[in-house]
Amino acid sequence: MTYVFNTVEEIEKSLRCIAAILKKKGRDILSNYSITPPQFDALLLLNESGNMTIGELSNKMYLACSTITDLMDRMEKNNLVKRVKDEKDRRLVRIQLLENGQRVIEAALAKRQEYLREVLKNFSDQEIVQLEKLLAKLQQEMKE
Amino acid sequence: MTYVFNTVEEIEKSLRCIAAILKKKGRDILSNYSITPPQFDALLLLNESGNMTIGELSNKMYLACSTITDLMDRMEKNNLVKRVKDEKDRRLVRIQLLENGQRVIEAALAKRQEYLREVLKNFSDQEIVQLEKLLAKLQQEMKE
Repeated sequence: MTYVFNTVEEIEKSLRCIAAILKKKGRDILSNYSITPPQFDALLLLNESGNMTIGELSNKMYLACSTITDLMDRMEKNNLVKRVKDEKDRRLVRIQLLENGQRVIEAALAKRQEYLREVLKNFSDQEIVQLEKLLAKLQQEMKE
Repeated sequence: MTYVFNTVEEIEKSLRCIAAILKKKGRDILSNYSITPPQFDALLLLNESGNMTIGELSNKMYLACSTITDLMDRMEKNNLVKRVKDEKDRRLVRIQLLENGQRVIEAALAKRQEYLREVLKNFSDQEIVQLEKLLAKLQQEMKE
């Protein structure tokens, strides 16, 4: 029991380190597309949840509205997003993901897969399948 | 081969989703300590790399110096960090982690372990040990 107790500590640490390495790797990948990680996070959020207001993005990203406004100004300039009026309430301005933003997301995700494939080259097919199963189970349990 | 190819895609997706869930969970945990995720990220960086300047934190966190300055003002008010003069170059101001900041880090990490222990309750001991081994190997391969 103590053994498994310590193992959980190790798993927490590994998951945290892997997330940090993937975050850093993600940043390196993004530098090829001239966007910053907060910009990419905003793109993923817009892709996931649809058009959002500055206030909603501010809440989800835990950054001040003024910071989000700056972010969106730069992203609008780079043709990644655009400001649009809300269809139901014309007084509301929402941020919309543009095709160029969508392309950046897809390209960055493809690069992440490529990186992971390289990292897994010393894993046997059996280990890869095992890892996939255990991570899918972990993800499932986390969602419940 | 195609099978394993798709499996890698699944692993990338799972790792990304798990990281996002852990990030969200981490935020919920942090709300108990009245600090925001960017503040916690700054604490972890200071804990890992020692005293840093606003410019260094700005680089590592990919946020503008003005944003980091605001962040540090609030964290200094909450007794998490303090500004100190660099020992070698007295003109440089560095941010130092305080005991209170250290305590927040430790408490938050303990809560993360507790959460993971709960999530793993439907895993057999064998699965937990397997997961630990595979994640340790993955982490190792990523570092190389």
